[in-house]
Amino acid sequence: MSALLSPEALEARLRAVGAARYHDKHPFHARLHSGRCSKGEVQAWALNRFCYQAHIPIKDASLIARMDDPALRRAWRQRLIDHDGHEDGEGGIERWLRLCESLDLERADVLAHRGILPATRFAVEAYVHFVRERPLLEAIASSLTELFSPQIIQHRVAGMLAHYDFVSRESLGYFTQRPEQARRDVETALAYVAAHAHTPADQQAVVAALEFKCDVLWAMLDALHHAYVEPGHIPPGAFEPAAP
Amino acid sequence: MSALLSPEALEARLRAVGAARYHDKHPFHARLHSGRCSKGEVQAWALNRFCYQAHIPIKDASLIARMDDPALRRAWRQRLIDHDGHEDGEGGIERWLRLCESLDLERADVLAHRGILPATRFAVEAYVHFVRERPLLEAIASSLTELFSPQIIQHRVAGMLAHYDFVSRESLGYFTQRPEQARRDVETALAYVAAHAHTPADQQAVVAALEFKCDVLWAMLDALHHAYVEPGHIPPGAFEPAAP
Repeated sequence: MSALLSPEALEARLRAVGAARYHDKHPFHARLHSGRCSKGEVQAWALNRFCYQAHIPIKDASLIARMDDPALRRAWRQRLIDHDGHEDGEGGIERWLRLCESLDLERADVLAHRGILPATRFAVEAYVHFVRERPLLEAIASSLTELFSPQIIQHRVAGMLAHYDFVSRESLGYFTQRPEQARRDVETALAYVAAHAHTPADQQAVVAALEFKCDVLWAMLDALHHAYVEPGHIPPGAFEPAAP
Repeated sequence: MSALLSPEALEARLRAVGAARYHDKHPFHARLHSGRCSKGEVQAWALNRFCYQAHIPIKDASLIARMDDPALRRAWRQRLIDHDGHEDGEGGIERWLRLCESLDLERADVLAHRGILPATRFAVEAYVHFVRERPLLEAIASSLTELFSPQIIQHRVAGMLAHYDFVSRESLGYFTQRPEQARRDVETALAYVAAHAHTPADQQAVVAALEFKCDVLWAMLDALHHAYVEPGHIPPGAFEPAAP
C-alpha cells in the first residue's frame, strides 16, 4: 500500500481487514452461535464482554475530549447516550447487565467485574489507552470494527435464540438496537477517515488501527476459549461455572 | 486481612500469593522445563517474552520518574543498568536477544516484536500502565514477583539444558545473572513496602498489586499455550513456527 487510495479503495482495504481478522472468524463465535456452548461458557462470555461494554463510553469520552471540532464532538456524543441512556435503567450497558442477569449472574458481581479474565481486562484497557494516546485519526479508525458488527449481531441473535433455552428475545435486547446505531456511527467515522487520511502513511496507520482493534476483540475470545472450552485452564481467581 | 500485619506476616502473605498464582504453576512452564515443547513453542515463548524483557527498563524508568527520594532512585537505577548495560552488546535485553538468535529467530524480527501475540503486548502494556498510574506503593509492590523468580529460573535452566539439544548454557546467559540481581532488587522493594504500607488497606493494596503482576505473567503463558500448544489457534498475524 504505497500509493494513495481513493476513499472507495480505502474502504475496500478496511473491509478486507475485517474479512481476515474480525472476530466473527473466531472459533468461539461459531461455537456460541451454533449452540455448542455450555451455559457456563455463555455466562463467562457475557461476564467478560461486560467489561468491554462498560468501557465503551469511557473510550468514547476520551475520544471526544481530544476533538477540537464541536460538530464532530456532537456526532460522537450520541455514542455516550446510546450506552449510558438518559436515566437509570436505560442504555446499552444496562441492557447488557440484563442479559447477564438473565443468565443467572449476580448484577453486583458483573458490575464489579468480579471473576473476569485478566486477559479481558488487559485487552479492554489496551483499547482505552490506544484511543487516548494515538493520533486522533488512528483513535477514530479503531472504532471501524462497527463496519462488521451488524452481520455478527444478526448471526448471534438468531443462533442464540435457536439453540439455548436459557436465552430469550427479551434478554438479547442489547442487540436489537445496535445494528442501526453501528451503521450511523460508522458513517461518521468513515467520513472522518476519508477526509483526514491525506497520505499513504496515514492510510496505512488507519488500516493498522483497525487491525489493532480486531486483535483486541480476537484476544478476548482467545482468552475465553482457552479458559472455558479447554478443560483445566481457568486462571487463578477467574469465574468458575457451576457444575452442569 | 483486616488487622495490620507485621512485616514478617505481610511477607508470608505475599509468599502465599506466589504459591497460589505465580507462573511456575502454569502448565506451559511445566511443559517448557520438562522438554515437552517443540522448538517452535520454545521460539514463540522466547519471542513473546522478549516483549516483556524490552519493556522492563521502560517500566523501571517510569517508576524512577515518580520517586522523590534520591536514595530510592539510586537503588532502582541499578535495574536500568542490569537490563540496558553500559554499552552496546551488554545487559539483560541483549542477552535475551542472543537467546532468541540461538533459537534461529531473526534479530530484527525480535527487536520489532514482529509476530508477537496481541495478548502478550496487552499484558505487558497493562504492567507499564499500572506502574505509571497506580500509587507508588502499589507500583513498587508489583515488582515483588522477583521473590519467586530465582527458583523458577533454576528449574528452567536445568530443565531446558537437559531436554533441548538446540539450547546451550551460553544461550541461556540471561538467566545466570538474574537470580542474584533479583535477590538484591527484592530486598529494596520489600523494605519499601514494609516501611510504607501503614494501614491494613495499604497492605491489601500491596497484595492486590502482586496478584495483578502474577496475572500479567500468567496471561502471557495462557496466550502462548492457547496459540502454540493447542493446534489451530494461532491468531491472525502471529508467528508461525516452521513445520518440524
